[in-house]
This record gives sequence, C-alpha cells and structure tokens, in this order.
Amino acid sequence: MNDLTSALVSALPDGRVITDPDVADSYARDRTFVPPGRPLGVVLARSRDDVVATLRWASEHRVPVVPRGAGTGLAGGATAVDGCVVLSLARMTAIRELVPQDEIAVVEPGVITADLDRAAREHGLMYAPDPSSYEISTIGGNLATNAGGLRCVKYGVTRDSVLGLEVVLADGRVLTTGRRTMKGVTGYDLTGLFVGSEGTLGVITAATLRLRRAPREVATIAAEFTSLRDAAAAVSAIIAAGCQPSLLELMDRTTLQAIDDWKNIGLEPSTRAMLIAQAEGSAEEMAALCETASFVATSSTPEEAAELIGIRRLAYQAKERLGQCLVEDVCVPRSALPEMITTIEEVAARHGVMIATVAHAGDGNLHPVFVFDRGLAEPPEEVWAAADEVFRAALDLGGTLTGEHGVGVLKKRWLDLETGPVVAELHRGIKQVFDPLNILNPGKAI
Amino acid sequence: MNDLTSALVSALPDGRVITDPDVADSYARDRTFVPPGRPLGVVLARSRDDVVATLRWASEHRVPVVPRGAGTGLAGGATAVDGCVVLSLARMTAIRELVPQDEIAVVEPGVITADLDRAAREHGLMYAPDPSSYEISTIGGNLATNAGGLRCVKYGVTRDSVLGLEVVLADGRVLTTGRRTMKGVTGYDLTGLFVGSEGTLGVITAATLRLRRAPREVATIAAEFTSLRDAAAAVSAIIAAGCQPSLLELMDRTTLQAIDDWKNIGLEPSTRAMLIAQAEGSAEEMAALCETASFVATSSTPEEAAELIGIRRLAYQAKERLGQCLVEDVCVPRSALPEMITTIEEVAARHGVMIATVAHAGDGNLHPVFVFDRGLAEPPEEVWAAADEVFRAALDLGGTLTGEHGVGVLKKRWLDLETGPVVAELHRGIKQVFDPLNILNPGKAI
Repeated sequence: MNDLTSALVSALPDGRVITDPDVADSYARDRTFVPPGRPLGVVLARSRDDVVATLRWASEHRVPVVPRGAGTGLAGGATAVDGCVVLSLARMTAIRELVPQDEIAVVEPGVITADLDRAAREHGLMYAPDPSSYEISTIGGNLATNAGGLRCVKYGVTRDSVLGLEVVLADGRVLTTGRRTMKGVTGYDLTGLFVGSEGTLGVITAATLRLRRAPREVATIAAEFTSLRDAAAAVSAIIAAGCQPSLLELMDRTTLQAIDDWKNIGLEPSTRAMLIAQAEGSAEEMAALCETASFVATSSTPEEAAELIGIRRLAYQAKERLGQCLVEDVCVPRSALPEMITTIEEVAARHGVMIATVAHAGDGNLHPVFVFDRGLAEPPEEVWAAADEVFRAALDLGGTLTGEHGVGVLKKRWLDLETGPVVAELHRGIKQVFDPLNILNPGKAI
Repeated sequence: MNDLTSALVSALPDGRVITDPDVADSYARDRTFVPPGRPLGVVLARSRDDVVATLRWASEHRVPVVPRGAGTGLAGGATAVDGCVVLSLARMTAIRELVPQDEIAVVEPGVITADLDRAAREHGLMYAPDPSSYEISTIGGNLATNAGGLRCVKYGVTRDSVLGLEVVLADGRVLTTGRRTMKGVTGYDLTGLFVGSEGTLGVITAATLRLRRAPREVATIAAEFTSLRDAAAAVSAIIAAGCQPSLLELMDRTTLQAIDDWKNIGLEPSTRAMLIAQAEGSAEEMAALCETASFVATSSTPEEAAELIGIRRLAYQAKERLGQCLVEDVCVPRSALPEMITTIEEVAARHGVMIATVAHAGDGNLHPVFVFDRGLAEPPEEVWAAADEVFRAALDLGGTLTGEHGVGVLKKRWLDLETGPVVAELHRGIKQVFDPLNILNPGKAI
C-alpha cells in the first residue's frame, strides 16, 4: 500500500477499501470484453459519507473514480481505467422508504432492481423498469445508464420512474435534485441530466422513485412465425390497432435455436421468429392480429404466462453459450422495424457473422447480438465491420445508436455520427461544470 | 428607429420586426400582473432562419432576448425586460409531420396545443399534455415551462411527451437533441434540460413529440361534497384503490361559487367541494368510492362528459371575474393533499385573503388563486404574506413551489428555500455553458 492508498484507507471506516490487486481486478470490468485498466483499489461504500470521503480524497489527489453497481453493463461504462479507484455502490442496499399512498420509494443505489419490484408488489404496486438483467442489476446502474427493459413499451424507461436524486459531486459536495411529488418544475432538470450520464457527472447515493399500480390481470401470448418479416408486421398491426401491450418482444431463429439447444423448448423446424406479448386485461385482440402466425399459445394461468416470458428471459444466457457476445442496442422508429430486421439479416450474411436478434419490438429497440469466437480477446474485424453497418443503417432510418445500454466506451467512436459537434461541445461544457478535474469515469459516455 | 433596430430589420425578411412602441408593448407581458420593461422591438419569427438571425444580431450587440409563445404564462416568464427584443414564436405554426404508425409529430413552437391534439385525433391518437390554457397556449410555451394539465395524472407532463428538439443557441448555432424513437440514451439528456428552462438556455424551433392512443371509452363523474376534507379523502381512496383515473380534479366552494355566479350551474348551498373524475373504461368504482358525497353525477354520453369537464375548464376565467388573480401552483405528495388544503383555508382566514383553490388532485398539484383588488398594481402585502405561508407549508410537507407553471420571476425569491446553494451554482454553471453572454431571458427561472 502506498501513501495514496493509505490516505484513502484512513479517510474511510475499516473494511471499506480493497487493495489486493487480484481482488481489485475482479471489480474492474463489466459484462463486455472491453479490456480494463488496473485500479489502485476498490472502495466498497456503505453510506453517503463513504462516497463523500472517497470523492474528496480523489479530488485532492486527482485520482480517477469509476463508479460501479453490479457490473452488468453492456457498453463498458464501468470498466476500470489504470490508476483509478473503483467505487462500488453495491453494498448500499437499503430501501429507505416505501410509501404506498404516495406510490414512491426512496432507495440506495445498491438495491437489486427486482428486489425493489418485489417489495413494491407487497403493496399492490410495482417498480416498472425491468432490464433483462433485473435480477442481478442495481438501481444505481440502471440510473447511470437510464436502463430500459421489457415493460418500457407501456411504462417508459428508468428516467420515467425517477422523481429525485441525492448526488455527491466530484468534489464531495452533496445535492438533492427533483422532488417527492408527481410533478415539479423548479429549476433545470438536473435529475434528468444525472440519469443516463454513466457516472460522469456525479455519484448517485439515493433515488426517489415512482412506483405504479401492479396490473390486476395480465394475459400473455406467444406466437410463432415462419418468417421474421411476418412477425415484424404483426408488431406493427398490434401497435396500429391500439392494443397497448405491456410487453411486446421478438426473437429470431438464431436466438430461438440457442434457447432450444439449451432448454429444449420443442422448437419447430419451420419457425423463424417468435413474438411474446402481454396486455393488461385480454390478449385476444393481439392473438387475432397475429394472423400469419403458424401457432399462437395463450396463457390461461400466471404460471403459464411466466413460462412464456421465461423463454424470452433465457435469450441472453442462451447466446452466451454460443461464444463471446457483442450485444448491440439500436433503436428505430417502430415503422422501420421490418426494414431494420431485414438489414441485420443481410449484413450478417454478407460478412459471414452470426447475429442473433431479440427486440423490444414495441419500442423499435433491437438487440442484434454478434457472436464471435471464445478464444479471441476482442471482436474480430468482420464483426466490427458488420456492427458499423448496422449502426449506420439504424441512423439512416431515423434511429439511435443505443436505446438503453448507453455509450460507455463501446459506442464512443460512432457518437459523432448521431450527435454532431455542437452537442459534443455542450457535453464537454456540462462535464466541466460538474467535474472540472475530470476525475469521474473519465473517457466514458461523451 | 435607431442603428440597433435598423440592423435587426435588415438582418430579417420584410415584415418580421415591430418597432412601434405601443404595439411592441402589447407583447411585453404574460397573464400575470408583473410590470414589464419596455422592449426595443418584437420579432415575429416565421422560420428557424429568422430565429438564427435574431440571436446572431442579439449576441453581436449584447441585446437581451425574451422568447415568447402565446403569453399565457402565469409566472412572469415571458415578461419583457427594458431594452430587450421580444422574440415571438407564435407564427411558426406548422405541424411538419404527423406519423401515425410511429405515434409521433414534428411541430413548430407556435402550434396551439389543442390544435395538435385535434390533428392527432383524426388518426385515433391524442397529444396528452393539456394545460388549462390549451386552447390558447402554444407548444413552445408548454415546452419552455414543462406545462402540466388535467390529463397528467395518467399521461405525465409535457416532458413525458417530448422525444427530441431543434434548438437555436444564444449565439445562433443550431442543434438537434434527442430522437424520433421511443427510447434512446446517446449522450446527456439535453432534451430534458431545455424543457422547462423557460427560454434561458436556447430557443426551441421544432419539437418531435410523442402522441398516444386516444382512449376508446371514457367515463366521467362529478361528485359534490359538503366538506373539502371529505373530497380530499375520496381522492386518496380513488388512488389507493388503483382506479387509474385519467383526470381527477378538485374545486373548492369559492371556485364553484365564482362559476355559479357566472354560468348558473345550480350549485347547492351546502356544497363545499366538487370532484370531477374520468377513467378509461368504467367510472363505477370511482363513483362508489365517493361514499361521503352528497350527490354523484355520472355521464352517459360524451356530451354529458364534456359538460362536466367544462365546469372545471371555466374555473380560471370565473375567478378572473372576481378581481386580479395571483395563481399559485404548489405540489405536495398525494397523501398530504388534505393537510395542504386545510392549511390553505387557515391561511386565507388568518390573513383575510380570498383564496379559491382548484387542484389536479390526482397529482397533489394545487392552484390556490389569491384574489385581490382590480385597482392595485400588484398584490397587496397580505397576499404575499399568505402566499409565503402557503409555499413554506408545501415545502414542509415534502412538496415543491411549482408543479407546472414554472419559476419565472414570481417564484424567484423562494427558489433557494427549495433548491439550496449547490443546485444554484450548478444552474449558473449550466447557464454559462449555453448562454455565456446572458442574453437569453435574463433574470428568469434560476
């Protein structure tokens, strides 16, 4: 331990700092292949005061700080840089308040997303945002990336459930943003600015979140199609008819095959795509709109519904069994979904790359997963070339590079294509206001 | 016309600039009593290029610019300052695109809010945000204040319907923020930062807005109560039962009396409060929860529903008949609604001030309207003293100074009570990044 880390250790209560390099390295990466730098150490914060002390120390010594939740990110946003301190918020796990009559909860950043949802359901409420990783991701990580999920199509993204924040700035000053009320317009929207800023503007130590009524009755269907375009057309028909699904997910053959190989779901050889949809009330209208489907299953019990959605929740793990994955995240206007899907198939064929796609189809948000060899340190050239074409196609269709995963380090080289120089200058100006020494997650997001 | 205004006139196409002082003065105020300064002139912008030219000229000559929609604001946000140019966006009225299959519209800032809603309804869609002034307010003004409205309780505020913006910065540079897609997390949330910034960070020249499915069936009830607290308790019961109203409005006796005096709605002498509620589907459950009501009317046709809601929409005009109005806008956690209402009644009695209250009760957002003598230039001391107590009570209950009207100039002296010095410093820092010469709506909002 050198003088620098000694000063950190003495600034914090016992047991908060890890300096053992092997243990520290295990906190250095997220779920991407991005090669991390070597951290000086890891702070396991248990309170706001720990965060304040860490950031004061970091400011004094100009040490980069990489904040971290559960490390489930898919864009390299929590990847350590050389000589940084990793600041883990995973042990700040208190649900400080849950007020059913106001439909709000005040939580610390280390709360597991699904745990908050379960706590809310005891009161007939739910926490709506549900990224696929919600059983292992933290609220803090969800806030940092403005995470989406399966229920976004009805309930919006993480930002739409955040009323206010407690934040520690890079220099250790604490502020609260927003409110506990449903509405409020006092001052600039700092809450929105921190959400999705990927730990570059401040460290969130508490959040006041909006809960929602859990739906009383939910109906679920799974429809199989012999063509991906037919499935995409059914999505458009469901939206156009105003069915208001609370979940509308699409999986391609490659994804389904990976799930079937693993869990044997009895996949028909002719099935090229599956749509899983959920609606509050009845799903009959949605089932009828899947008129080109080869088969439609309708759940008649909550257990059957959970089984159908369970297939979708297996998708990511199933694909990881095929090799290393570059999980991408483009989002296009909903009407462009069929065209985007066709383009992805063409790009895969042209570059000889395996791409397995799942989509939050109701949002136009696609996750083409580029599978590559497990032996490689990073994606081979043809994967990047294919990804580049997919990104450009999404932008050409009026879409965006990232619907819900964030920019992190993985998307930085395409950022300018979407945002342009004026936005980039404003980003830098804002960063300078909040973190003039550039110690908070340097090199990420902007 | 002096050299300064001549330069402005020659920078713009013919007919864009008003320099006649009397005409210019008519663009100098909003719907508050706030005494305006004298503008140099008014620009009636018809295009983004007009806005760019105006702001370049203003930057060059360091002239303050006060952007303006329809002037329906209630916080003094569009009040002219001496020597400024008023930049009216009211003539930029194009709905550039309306894409039903993507449920989006791209509109200019001068579009009347209700006109966009009507255009959307031709496609079975709606534009959800509906401030009480929506028949006369513009989208640009709604964006500047992050306006709320009656339907917020189900569909959220203006911010929740904004996907992206085209903005001209103080120096004339143009940027686009956000996206056309339902989700997207590329870069910091500049869209959210501009929305609600009251014209202090940039001038919005186009917005990509989210439309929503218009509900198929809507049921409306009006319930009369002999006590205001009973009405507030019914609100809590409706929320707690998970009825999900799409509108839930409360009016006190003073408001109802003003409406009855004007339109003779047959108000019973014993009625102290009225609740108007709407739900998609059936309103039976809500009606049953108004168990302490003296009378409950249920609409059986759309015309009857419009009539019931029409009573609420008359409230503001009815009160203007009583005298000058200071329209306030506190928002509290929903469970604090009964206590806030009681406090307002006590404050009114103690200070001998007439306060008529309407509330977007489902959001905990109250509009206590302080009525004062028409002969006065501004509210008398006792009105300010009463307002001060109401604001502090709202903050003590975990609430906010302004749910949807904005800070403007009227709320500035209370701002620090809610936000504190760190937030104030961040506000100033952000303002400096976007508008280093401080020419955009100086002295407002922050």
